[in-house]
Amino acid sequence: MPELRLDPVTGRWVLVATERARRPKDFAHQDAATGKVRPERSETCPFCPGNEKQTPPEIFSFRRDGTRPDEAGWWVRGVPNKYPALTWEPTVQASTSGIFSVRPATGAHEVIIESPLHNASPATMSYDEMAEVIRAYIHRYRALSEAPDIRYILIFRNHGRDAGASLEHPHSQVAAVPLVPPVVLEELAGARHHHESTGRCVFCDMVRQELESNVRVVLETREFVALEPYASKMPFETWVLPKTHAPSFHDLHPSNYRELAQVLVDVLRAVSTGLHDPPYNYILHTAPPRERCDGFYHWHIEVFPKLTVAAGFEFGMGMYINVTTPESAAEFLRNHVPSEPSGRNSGL
Amino acid sequence: MPELRLDPVTGRWVLVATERARRPKDFAHQDAATGKVRPERSETCPFCPGNEKQTPPEIFSFRRDGTRPDEAGWWVRGVPNKYPALTWEPTVQASTSGIFSVRPATGAHEVIIESPLHNASPATMSYDEMAEVIRAYIHRYRALSEAPDIRYILIFRNHGRDAGASLEHPHSQVAAVPLVPPVVLEELAGARHHHESTGRCVFCDMVRQELESNVRVVLETREFVALEPYASKMPFETWVLPKTHAPSFHDLHPSNYRELAQVLVDVLRAVSTGLHDPPYNYILHTAPPRERCDGFYHWHIEVFPKLTVAAGFEFGMGMYINVTTPESAAEFLRNHVPSEPSGRNSGL
Repeated sequence: MPELRLDPVTGRWVLVATERARRPKDFAHQDAATGKVRPERSETCPFCPGNEKQTPPEIFSFRRDGTRPDEAGWWVRGVPNKYPALTWEPTVQASTSGIFSVRPATGAHEVIIESPLHNASPATMSYDEMAEVIRAYIHRYRALSEAPDIRYILIFRNHGRDAGASLEHPHSQVAAVPLVPPVVLEELAGARHHHESTGRCVFCDMVRQELESNVRVVLETREFVALEPYASKMPFETWVLPKTHAPSFHDLHPSNYRELAQVLVDVLRAVSTGLHDPPYNYILHTAPPRERCDGFYHWHIEVFPKLTVAAGFEFGMGMYINVTTPESAAEFLRNHVPSEPSGRNSGL
Repeated sequence: MPELRLDPVTGRWVLVATERARRPKDFAHQDAATGKVRPERSETCPFCPGNEKQTPPEIFSFRRDGTRPDEAGWWVRGVPNKYPALTWEPTVQASTSGIFSVRPATGAHEVIIESPLHNASPATMSYDEMAEVIRAYIHRYRALSEAPDIRYILIFRNHGRDAGASLEHPHSQVAAVPLVPPVVLEELAGARHHHESTGRCVFCDMVRQELESNVRVVLETREFVALEPYASKMPFETWVLPKTHAPSFHDLHPSNYRELAQVLVDVLRAVSTGLHDPPYNYILHTAPPRERCDGFYHWHIEVFPKLTVAAGFEFGMGMYINVTTPESAAEFLRNHVPSEPSGRNSGL
């Protein structure tokens, strides 16, 4: 019984077609079964402690007192991406020739190494460890949003080779880009439209409606909610939103780092244990730093486990086919959320 | 030297970042090296001759005189998709609840089996065989565009498991959908804008400018050109366009089926031999059947070899990073286009 569901933010349709579905256990990621155990440290990994000289000089680090930059002793470390998609040095002149236009890809492309442990991952980190990663996000977010000509700070994470992670050592990426991403422009336009016509934030409406119906909610804490969006583009797509209206990630208060870390860790742990450590991406969506979107935009994190292949239909339509309803995905993930706050003891 | 290139049709930016590049030989598809030889016929394949009863009853077939539907004797055969993403029977009532809206996914989802040979593929078919596939596309395009409430006919092909092909027997798909795809809406809007401001078709301008500069052209025939678009989203993205303005695929004249087949076969053969049979998708872009886009839209086929993984950056931006310039891709493919018209002798 295929149906078209409207994304209430962007106004895009998603095709939910469960005839094509597999059950959650059929999604189990194939590589997981190999039982390959990754070591805590790899001699050849440029992100492992002791190998600091293999990266460009560090931008920042959270490290033990008395240790020095580009040496061991850090627990989170930021470095430039060795193969940056954006650079501060202008590479081409902005120009137009007939119907073709080019401009330099000005900006920064950085890596945040999340742990000294080669085999760590958000799904196995303690809440305290993940809170330090979030502190690093905020740190770079604030610094880069001051840079001239930067219109957006994109913070994202690729987990697993099939989700684009070329190095397995746990890391996130931060890109400072000279334009507002089309994905964000589309959200801003939809959210602004909703605000113009109702006076309300569409994300606040979503949080309220989802908490009331409670069929797509995965977990809830005092400040945050994790849910499967009504028009989920992919199986087990999960959003983490602050329950209170907040346009920019910039405004996240330090007292909430650990609670956000807890929600994110619990979601990724449920995905990892329930679906056998699939590849995934997560992406921070936030208001552009130089724009006032106070009334209508609402920052959040979108998590996309990579369980299906986008193909001709998706490329040709610009529309996703989702083979799992968000209602069944939410039920499945709820059963895999740890009932007790868990996580290894942190060494922090 | 990363640079941002503007897609002259949609106005979307693409990031071309060749520092991150690999050379064409590094793209060589991993599975190709296994040298697995596929048989001409598979007992278990529902698309192989003799197994016609394993598909839903056929919609049409091109077959030898005296043979009967749903039996062997066909060379191209159309059947309903067994797991359709769209159906004629309404599955839900169109309704809205708070911020959430749903509507039935009304339409058709069909498969065109391109050859009786299990191991055929466009890259190994004769031009005559491929011309029959194109005749089948036109046949279904015309029939389905008459159906009520259908706004677009999407014709596409997935080759290889990593490009979404769940069965290896050569086949294309046709979807009749109740809305104009967002991808096409975006092209229509951009092309209309170009037409309003210049009085010309942006695709005609592109064909003219590319043929003049000749750095991104892969091959040219009397009626068609194959080129790497200036703002290619992916390495070796290739477009096939009629050189003369033509809004709808519907209007393709039977006398041109074979020449289009030749261009498509030569492009896919160059991709297949040069890049070691990578997975790919190709997608027909055409004016919506019920809309008049005569002055400004121009049908074409887009081919996307799947050589890189879209990840957090692409999802978060809604923008592609392309690690190969279209100029170098065009040069590479030109060297792999057969200089003599080739192809097996056709049995037609």
